[in-house]
Amino acid sequence: MNIYPDCFPCFFRQTRIALDQSGIADEEQIGILKEVAEIIIKADLSGSPAHVTTFIHRMIREVAGKDPFRDIKSEYNRKALSLYDDLKKTIKESGDPLLTAGRLAIAGNIIDFGIFRSVDMEGTIGKAMGSDIAVDDYRLLLDDMRNAGEILYLLDNAGEIVFDRLFIEELRKSGAGVTAVVKGSPTINDATIDDAIQTGLDKVCRVIDNGSDAVGTILKWCSEDFVRKFSGAALIVSKGQANFETLLAVVDRPLYFLFQAKCNVVARFLGLEKGSMIFSRVDTFAPKSREVESPGRITR
Amino acid sequence: MNIYPDCFPCFFRQTRIALDQSGIADEEQIGILKEVAEIIIKADLSGSPAHVTTFIHRMIREVAGKDPFRDIKSEYNRKALSLYDDLKKTIKESGDPLLTAGRLAIAGNIIDFGIFRSVDMEGTIGKAMGSDIAVDDYRLLLDDMRNAGEILYLLDNAGEIVFDRLFIEELRKSGAGVTAVVKGSPTINDATIDDAIQTGLDKVCRVIDNGSDAVGTILKWCSEDFVRKFSGAALIVSKGQANFETLLAVVDRPLYFLFQAKCNVVARFLGLEKGSMIFSRVDTFAPKSREVESPGRITR
Repeated sequence: MNIYPDCFPCFFRQTRIALDQSGIADEEQIGILKEVAEIIIKADLSGSPAHVTTFIHRMIREVAGKDPFRDIKSEYNRKALSLYDDLKKTIKESGDPLLTAGRLAIAGNIIDFGIFRSVDMEGTIGKAMGSDIAVDDYRLLLDDMRNAGEILYLLDNAGEIVFDRLFIEELRKSGAGVTAVVKGSPTINDATIDDAIQTGLDKVCRVIDNGSDAVGTILKWCSEDFVRKFSGAALIVSKGQANFETLLAVVDRPLYFLFQAKCNVVARFLGLEKGSMIFSRVDTFAPKSREVESPGRITR
Repeated sequence: MNIYPDCFPCFFRQTRIALDQSGIADEEQIGILKEVAEIIIKADLSGSPAHVTTFIHRMIREVAGKDPFRDIKSEYNRKALSLYDDLKKTIKESGDPLLTAGRLAIAGNIIDFGIFRSVDMEGTIGKAMGSDIAVDDYRLLLDDMRNAGEILYLLDNAGEIVFDRLFIEELRKSGAGVTAVVKGSPTINDATIDDAIQTGLDKVCRVIDNGSDAVGTILKWCSEDFVRKFSGAALIVSKGQANFETLLAVVDRPLYFLFQAKCNVVARFLGLEKGSMIFSRVDTFAPKSREVESPGRITR
């Protein structure tokens, strides 16, 4: 997915969130925001928004001399873990545990400190359980799972991975093998191996990293090892907006996007309301919506 | 007033509004937004936000090959004129016609297409008549008017100047002479001499221009003629946020700021809620708040 004009104010808004998170004073932030302007000028703007934010967040970590999101990631892992038992019960008692766990995995995608300053986790869970999935390819996933024994599951954020753990537990009950993928090193509040360990995900399935600090999954920046696994995967589940932005071109095999359309640009690209829940196979959007603006509401 | 970190996303948001107003397609906007990044890099960021937006809007007019706000300015002059008779009646029937007209002049400051995409004129009038003025130096103005026979009245936006006309009519009734000042040439939706003529302001008082296309009043970029008049003025009324940003340093004589705090940065600088109505003499803010963040709520 390309960069749209509304991404520009957002590049600076995201920077503000990360700088505030780093505890950097307003006066110092001015020079860093100027560096963001320089990154934008040098960047190849024909890529995805995630390409640019990768460079921005690298620069911020360097200037801050630390990972600004380390503490908040750990805090949200704990907060989400405290909901684990209740959510497990909700899933167990529901008519379709796998679908319910999938819904919750989409709900957990709200824990995104790239875009938000604060997160209403409980409110989003309630909404996710009560409202329609705007693009719903769940039935297709069931078919694809029958053909592919193994799922490569691309995680998104810390905290959110507790919800992913619940979904992965159900996927495994349905007979699928799952390998979960974290980032190679910190970027925004994306999950790394530390978060997988903190949330016990490593006890539920195999967890590997993609060797990269990129926002989303930018294959040319990932490790050879991961690219080999990605290329060989028969079925991929991809969480979050940034993975959607960066993997829309992968149309040679079943790849499912599970996320919330959290910004106007992505919502408009999809022709959906902001906040919509997406459970979509990649070919639902391709080639119709590929880099075409406002393709209209997508229905099957 | 200095540039704050939250001005950076706003520079790009403002550009988007102006480009959409120009009818420039999204794909073309990307390159122009990149030029905004270049302006920010080259700009002296120790100035006011209005310094930077002056360069941005100059560039936009050049790229668009026209004044993007020409039609909307004319439309809002007409819309505001259609309210003239009712507002005149409201003023006449009020307990303090001069104060009521002043309130309405502040209400009219909502017509700002630098910041907003759409404007609720009637709603703002209702609010302005019903709510407190957050910083209210109206009584001081009455005193200062007794000492100074002539007011230099710095206008802000088209449409808004109909509200200014009503206030100026009351100021003149109170015995003050008024010279109103428009911009030398178009910038955002600021009033120029064409707007003064369209709204009949030129029939009510003397109207001069400041020889500049700057956002706000940046004296070094104004005509010698205007600077002479400004320097000699015993009493100045200044409308709008940009004039506030650029004239806070003028503390050698009574200068009144009438505006709404329309953005978070200015509201935070003032220690007031966003949307607050300001009717303030310059020394209310000086030196206490000069470039000091969040000076706390200001009371007299």
